[in-house]
Order: sequence, then C-alpha cells, then structure tokens
Amino acid sequence: MNAIEKITNRLEKGFHICVGLDSDINKIPEYLRSEENAVLKFNKAIIESTSDIAAAFKINFAFYEKEGSKGMELLSRTLELIPDDVLVIGDAKRGDIGNTSKMYAQSMFEHYNLDASTLSPYMGHDSLSPFIDYSKNIHFILALTSNPGSFDFEKLDLASGKKVYQEVITKVSEWNKSKNLGIVFGATNLEELKENIENFGDLFILLPGVGAQGGDLEGIVKTFKENSNNKYIINVSRALIYADSSEKFAEVSRNVLVNYNAVIKNV
Amino acid sequence: MNAIEKITNRLEKGFHICVGLDSDINKIPEYLRSEENAVLKFNKAIIESTSDIAAAFKINFAFYEKEGSKGMELLSRTLELIPDDVLVIGDAKRGDIGNTSKMYAQSMFEHYNLDASTLSPYMGHDSLSPFIDYSKNIHFILALTSNPGSFDFEKLDLASGKKVYQEVITKVSEWNKSKNLGIVFGATNLEELKENIENFGDLFILLPGVGAQGGDLEGIVKTFKENSNNKYIINVSRALIYADSSEKFAEVSRNVLVNYNAVIKNV
Repeated sequence: MNAIEKITNRLEKGFHICVGLDSDINKIPEYLRSEENAVLKFNKAIIESTSDIAAAFKINFAFYEKEGSKGMELLSRTLELIPDDVLVIGDAKRGDIGNTSKMYAQSMFEHYNLDASTLSPYMGHDSLSPFIDYSKNIHFILALTSNPGSFDFEKLDLASGKKVYQEVITKVSEWNKSKNLGIVFGATNLEELKENIENFGDLFILLPGVGAQGGDLEGIVKTFKENSNNKYIINVSRALIYADSSEKFAEVSRNVLVNYNAVIKNV
Repeated sequence: MNAIEKITNRLEKGFHICVGLDSDINKIPEYLRSEENAVLKFNKAIIESTSDIAAAFKINFAFYEKEGSKGMELLSRTLELIPDDVLVIGDAKRGDIGNTSKMYAQSMFEHYNLDASTLSPYMGHDSLSPFIDYSKNIHFILALTSNPGSFDFEKLDLASGKKVYQEVITKVSEWNKSKNLGIVFGATNLEELKENIENFGDLFILLPGVGAQGGDLEGIVKTFKENSNNKYIINVSRALIYADSSEKFAEVSRNVLVNYNAVIKNV
C-alpha cells in the first residue's frame, strides 16, 4: 500500500486526526522516565492504543535529533512499531538546493522508509523537486503556519494582490502533477481557512494548531464538509499524547482520539 | 573563543573562504572508498590541510543524516577533528514552531557544539528566536539563494515595492540586537549583490554559489571591498574538496584554497 492509498483509506473511514509523536523524556508520564528505553515504551503504548483509528502519525525529527545518533536510533525503532497500513509523516521541514535536497529525500524515503514529508517552500521548485519526484510519497509544503511569526513573511502582501502563502498554494497546485502534494495550513484562524479553501483543489491539507494551540476543531471540520473536501488531516500532538500521566495514559490518549473522531463525525 | 570572535579573527586575517564538507562516499577519491571510515579519513585530510587558512568549515547535515545514526556518529567524529579556533557552521536550514526550533537549537549548540547555523525565514521571528537567543553563536538566515527556484518566492515583488528576500534582510537586521546574525546571499548574480550590499549593515554574509555554481569570485570581493564591508564568507564545497582524486588530494585542495586566498588579497 503506498502513501496515497494509506491516507485515502483512512480519510474515507472518517479518520482525520494525525497523532503527533512529539515525544519528550521530560513530558512523558513520570513513572516511565527512569525505565530503560522510556521514550520507546511511551511511543509503543501510544501507537498500539491509537493506530487503528488515527489518520496518520507524524514524527517530529527535532525530538529525536536532539539526542544525536542515539535519538536517530530511537526514531528508527519507533518507526518499526507503526503498522504498515498507517501513513507516517516525517516532519523535518526540509528545503535546500537540489543536490542536498536529494540526500534529505533519500534519507526520508530510503533510509527511514517514511511515507510523507514536510517541506519549506522558501527556496522554490528545484529545492522541492527531489522530494516531489518520490511520486508515491506525499509532501506537505508549508503555506500558512499557526505561529505568530506567520505575519513576518507568509502573510505579506504581494504586488499581485495575493499574500505570499497564497502564492505558495497556487504554485504547489501547479506542481501537483502526480497528485502527491499537500500543504500545511494553520488551523488557528477559521476565517483564513474559509477564505482559501476554494483554492486547495486536489491538495492534501495538513492542519496544525488544534489542541495545545487552540484551533477550533468543529469549525474546521464544518468548513471542509461544506466544501465537500475530505482531504484534510488535523495534527494533534501534545493535547493527545500527554492527555494523562498515570499508568493508564495510553488508554486516555485513545479516549481523546475517540472523542475527536466523534466530533468530526457529528459535525 | 566564541563564534563571533573565531570568525572575526579569520576575516581580519583576510581569510574569507568557508570549506564546505559536503563529503560523499561516491565522490571522494576512489582509492579511499573501500577503506574503513573512508569519509572520516577524507574529512580529516581536508581539515588538516586547510584549517589554518580557511575562514570556516560548513557541515551540510544532509550528507550525514542520509546514513541515519551511523551518519550522525560520523558527523560527531568529524566535528572533533576541527581545531577549536575555526568557526563551524551546521548547515541544516532549520525553521519550525518555537518549541520545536528550541530542540533543533539545543541539538546544534549543546549536543553537537556547533558555532553557527543556517535557518529558513519562512515561519518568521518566533521560529528563529530559539536560535537567535544563543547570542554567542552566529545564525545565517536564508535571504537570496543561488538556485533557479529563487524566482518562485524569494524574488517576488511585494506591495511595499521590495522583494521578499529584501524584506528578509530588513527584518533580520532589526532582529540583530546581539550582532550575531547573518544572511545567506547567493553569489551567482553580481548585480543583485551590488543592489543590496548597502542594506547588509552589521550582518555577516554567507555567499554560496562560487565554484561549481559559477559565481564570480573577483567581482564579489571587489564589491565588498568597495563598500568597506569585511563581513563576507564565501562558501566553496565541491570545487575545493573534490579538486583532485589522487593520493595528493588534500594537498591539491590546500592549493586551491591558497589560490582563492591570493585572489581575494589581490583584488
């Protein structure tokens, strides 16, 4: 099953929540922290309790890279625990000149065998094309992010009348010949989603900002449903994986996900 | 000696070439490839032959990450070989939301003990501030890059009359309270350098594009000298480290660097 089939399958079942494995030794349940391979055990419990009803998993590279080669080993071992039929997004927001991007792409899709990536658009098409060329994998390109800094460059007005992030959406749509591209679109301001949803076309949409960042889940889902667009994936990290710190943490995380899924179904 | 002192010291001596350690097992001299730790041996030879007359070294993370945890171990071992008085730039073009950027910054400055980073501006100030807060380290933020894709977003005209990359230069200058920031400014078009050099102010300038990408070394140096700006660092990777494939490769690389230094001095 390739990446596009994996996610399409889940979206058709009504599963739209991506579980963000932003796993941090200082935030996992305290009773686990002193154990050997504590983060791996945490990840295993979360994966086992959520993988059948999640849309995808997202691995934030920063949380692994900060431990150097040991962290990358943990990343590999975590990836082995995820069932083959669930999309795994490698979140590292890459973007570099062609010969370098090619190596990052090899790393993500050949070494780590990930299904999907996140990319920064700043350096333009030839910085992204070594990723895009992995045509059975999905690539989410940053358009509008959910942080305050989105005002610095993403939301600047262009002479054309568009904003910078809107030009990103336009160009990414043009580059989407293999129907394997998506955008990252911050979910913290519902009006922005409403203003732009008509331009999403065939793109997959990865929405960060629900949960700890305060995005409005019902409003988002309603907007997508009203536009007959089912290609949305809502990432939740901290609010889901750290929902509880007792020995029942994984069960509680599953309940949180069950509740999100119910909200999505019932909007 | 902190990062700013290291580079200032070298620039004052007239050393402006950064040696890019884009070391690839498929490109190093063939006779070395079958040896154990071939890339490490290659890096060691290049570092020993150039470190006294280079401005800095730049480590391109992609070339190491593609080998996973083994590659990150190689990166660590390579860093141990670089003398303490030479600036080392970790080139990974990071940029993510605050709590994630904080981890990438920790990785670069606490785990790997690098002197400097490269960053992508797209997500704005709060995505960069965890790096900027390492005020004794230097952070080079992408402004104008030397690849064809720079036309896609970097060179778009803003409603303000500036181009996107020029707004990056303006904002990075505003954020440069600790005098520890720089920009990446592609060296392939001399006219663009001439048009913008007045706005560089106190920023360090990292220029890729000389060597394999065809930038005009003499023209660049002349422009900086005419503007009494000595804060420029010209990165050369492939054209320097792969100048020769015989057993004398490291000596040849040194000669290439000696020649670059002479050109810079005599302009």
